Amino acid sequence: MLFFTQCFGAVLDLIHLRFQHYKAKRVFSAAGQLVCVVNPTHSLKYAPTRCAAAQVSTEQGILPPCHHHEAVHDPQLVPCTCPLFSCPWEGHLEVVVSHLRQTHRINILQGAEIVFLATDMHLPAPTDWIIMHSCLGHQFLLVLRKQEKYEGHPQFFATMMLIGTPTQADNFTYRLELNRNQRRLKWEATPRSILECVDSVISDGDCLVLNTSLAQLFSDNGSLAIGIAITTSKVHSSEAEM
Amino acid sequence: MLFFTQCFGAVLDLIHLRFQHYKAKRVFSAAGQLVCVVNPTHSLKYAPTRCAAAQVSTEQGILPPCHHHEAVHDPQLVPCTCPLFSCPWEGHLEVVVSHLRQTHRINILQGAEIVFLATDMHLPAPTDWIIMHSCLGHQFLLVLRKQEKYEGHPQFFATMMLIGTPTQADNFTYRLELNRNQRRLKWEATPRSILECVDSVISDGDCLVLNTSLAQLFSDNGSLAIGIAITTSKVHSSEAEM
Repeated sequence: MLFFTQCFGAVLDLIHLRFQHYKAKRVFSAAGQLVCVVNPTHSLKYAPTRCAAAQVSTEQGILPPCHHHEAVHDPQLVPCTCPLFSCPWEGHLEVVVSHLRQTHRINILQGAEIVFLATDMHLPAPTDWIIMHSCLGHQFLLVLRKQEKYEGHPQFFATMMLIGTPTQADNFTYRLELNRNQRRLKWEATPRSILECVDSVISDGDCLVLNTSLAQLFSDNGSLAIGIAITTSKVHSSEAEM
Repeated sequence: MLFFTQCFGAVLDLIHLRFQHYKAKRVFSAAGQLVCVVNPTHSLKYAPTRCAAAQVSTEQGILPPCHHHEAVHDPQLVPCTCPLFSCPWEGHLEVVVSHLRQTHRINILQGAEIVFLATDMHLPAPTDWIIMHSCLGHQFLLVLRKQEKYEGHPQFFATMMLIGTPTQADNFTYRLELNRNQRRLKWEATPRSILECVDSVISDGDCLVLNTSLAQLFSDNGSLAIGIAITTSKVHSSEAEM
């Protein structure tokens, strides 16, 4: 009986996902943009000291280890700073993409402009929505996080990280755009490197920040569509060369 | 002696203002945009029930009276809903502009695109920066407010109101733009009518919202430059005609 109940639940989930995807395609297909439906990842824990090691910024392409060693039971495993919490992995930059795809099943999308459709925005904080974006010969990671900076007042934070070094990141500009209900909000910035900690970017508020009421205004049936575009920033690259 | 000290203080204030204006002109003159230096108005009090009467939205052009009658000592004076707090005035829409100019000495600027330079962003909340903008045959009011929605965490809220009815407001779109330190933030929306309460727009968060760290990133020596543009929104006007 329990088996059949679980099967029925799984079928319902599939129908729900299919409906979300269909709805997204219907909304954005007119614009000819690639739409990716992104389901939430409920974060198991938030460790404030997780970023301490990442502050020692390196250009060597090696992700520094974390401080929450209490989560490690097997001495062969070393904790990592990849954006998904409670992940006991670490490695070189070159293998971060395959790790995120294979272990965390994070989708990777191709194209200069895509639409990120985050579902189930009503879920309680902390919750993450994560996707990878392959563009201009590099891979980027978009993180949307629902978090309570002030108790009882969840906010949404969205940022883009380059899976590369800070020097490489300086060559790009990313744009996040929300557009609904006669309102439009655009955020443009240089992506941060994944070697810097996504947690500190969000805690500093140096990203697109939405309060709950604004997120609701931009949402459609509990889903938030974020248009993403990445361009090369020639000014920055020439500055870097100087 | 006290007189000379006060005179010296006034001269210092004048030099400071002149310096702010010169700095703003130097920064923005290259873009050929009109820059207005806006000094803060420290709000004397915040009355949460002030908006109750304004919720009864009227198209008659009469500003509804406020609820904080305890502030009125002279029975001939009736409190008003104009955005400056503790103002005991009320009147018809047609005379709001002259009231704001004459009584509150709020500057009015002409032009489709202007730069609003708010000084002294470090002042404690609650503080308002207010300016009028004359454009496309109408007058608009830009309100930037520093307020603590969550105790100990001041935020900045910026919105534009039409000094006109909600139906007239539906014909326009306003854009607020911040651009500094390789970051750009744009907010576009339909202005609200001054008959709706600016306090409720801000408390709903249906405006440009900045946390303190983001405001600092966009500021230059304690001044925040906001580019303002107003356009007619033909889609809305055709919708209104239907």
